[in-house]
Amino acid sequence: MLSKPQIRAITSLQQKKFRREHGLFIVEGVKSVKEFLHSDYSVQRIYHTAQTAAKLPKIPQNIKSVEIDEPTLARISALKSPQGVLAVVRIPAYPPLTAATLQQGFHLVLDDIQDPGNLGTIIRTADWFGLERVICSVGSVDAYNPKTVQASMGSLARMQVCYTDLADLVVRSPVPVFGAVLDGRALYDTDFGQHGLVVLGNEGNGIGPAVLPHITQRVTIPRVGNAESLNVAISAALFCAELARQKAQP
Amino acid sequence: MLSKPQIRAITSLQQKKFRREHGLFIVEGVKSVKEFLHSDYSVQRIYHTAQTAAKLPKIPQNIKSVEIDEPTLARISALKSPQGVLAVVRIPAYPPLTAATLQQGFHLVLDDIQDPGNLGTIIRTADWFGLERVICSVGSVDAYNPKTVQASMGSLARMQVCYTDLADLVVRSPVPVFGAVLDGRALYDTDFGQHGLVVLGNEGNGIGPAVLPHITQRVTIPRVGNAESLNVAISAALFCAELARQKAQP
Repeated sequence: MLSKPQIRAITSLQQKKFRREHGLFIVEGVKSVKEFLHSDYSVQRIYHTAQTAAKLPKIPQNIKSVEIDEPTLARISALKSPQGVLAVVRIPAYPPLTAATLQQGFHLVLDDIQDPGNLGTIIRTADWFGLERVICSVGSVDAYNPKTVQASMGSLARMQVCYTDLADLVVRSPVPVFGAVLDGRALYDTDFGQHGLVVLGNEGNGIGPAVLPHITQRVTIPRVGNAESLNVAISAALFCAELARQKAQP
Repeated sequence: MLSKPQIRAITSLQQKKFRREHGLFIVEGVKSVKEFLHSDYSVQRIYHTAQTAAKLPKIPQNIKSVEIDEPTLARISALKSPQGVLAVVRIPAYPPLTAATLQQGFHLVLDDIQDPGNLGTIIRTADWFGLERVICSVGSVDAYNPKTVQASMGSLARMQVCYTDLADLVVRSPVPVFGAVLDGRALYDTDFGQHGLVVLGNEGNGIGPAVLPHITQRVTIPRVGNAESLNVAISAALFCAELARQKAQP
């Protein structure tokens, strides 16, 4: 089974500090582990119960696979209801965002998003709508947070999530910078063209003062009812859907 | 201050069983408490810290308002970071859903939705897009769950959420029954007309077998990328937005 120090080493990856120190994060559940095994990510180790073994694909020989009992899995799991399998995966290093990269289609840009579930849902949605990449401010929640990984439902295995200085990014952007604000042009009247950055702000405060002046196209989701605002993952989805719709029906 | 039995009575409302027994639920945070005070809901009691008192509107004389210290508020709060004010509010009884009611615009119908945060986000989104009502199957998560109330960001104060037998509802529906499925007509090619039910299914299993045969219009959110599915709150939002868009640009 696993020693106490081994268990501590795995559970430490629930904290960003230790994820960054070791360059590792955890992925749980059969579906998500499968997606990471079939991706460009480097899966380091897999811990699974006897019961879950049959549900897993053949694990390549270079990946250490360890069978553990359910109580031990519960101890290393970040979930309330552990799902029988946990993988330790290497955090990738992505190449810098060049002008050429930014000119390929659309990128979602998140300015200090804080909720790990929101980020995971946004990654899943961006994957559904075929966006190029999710770009986060350095103050945003970590994409390798277990709650984010969980909410992404495997999409993190496919969708690049980069962290960068957003003020610098938007200033030098070679493509239009669309921003979700409350007093812009209606989403459906906005011509998104062929490429661009789509900036969404923090849950409570919206787009911050370092980024806001560099928004070239202020865009608003038209409101019909009474809520003051929309959840940021919902706003992101409505932008993604409109990009996809305009591409399909120009 | 508050006695131990008083504290227990309030924290018991974090559980559905006791909410139903007492017909009460809790609302936290200045913004949400304000929205409930200005709504048709009957606010019974308000507990607040000295610091938060100034941020609250004038509280009507028939509502008991109690100043408590921060540690006591932390004990009665369901939040990780208590927000200085907690209201105990009566659960309303809504009139039955008649054919005439269902013929007024669009209703979101949720078949066994389980995540309280998803339901709260859907209520907030339905409020933004001016839907008439949210109708849940009896097996759905409780709208008065503290996490749902929180995620609704005050919209629960305005948006009616009803629980009913969905099979019965869709069988006798006087309006078209649109359903979110993976193999239907594209969302943007669907003519929603003037009224209808829009059914969304459970997070893992979609629309259940009791309801699915009675969907008169199967609708799909077109996928461009690779994710297998969308979060149910995201799907709900994309339907709500499309209803609003078609109404604005018929």
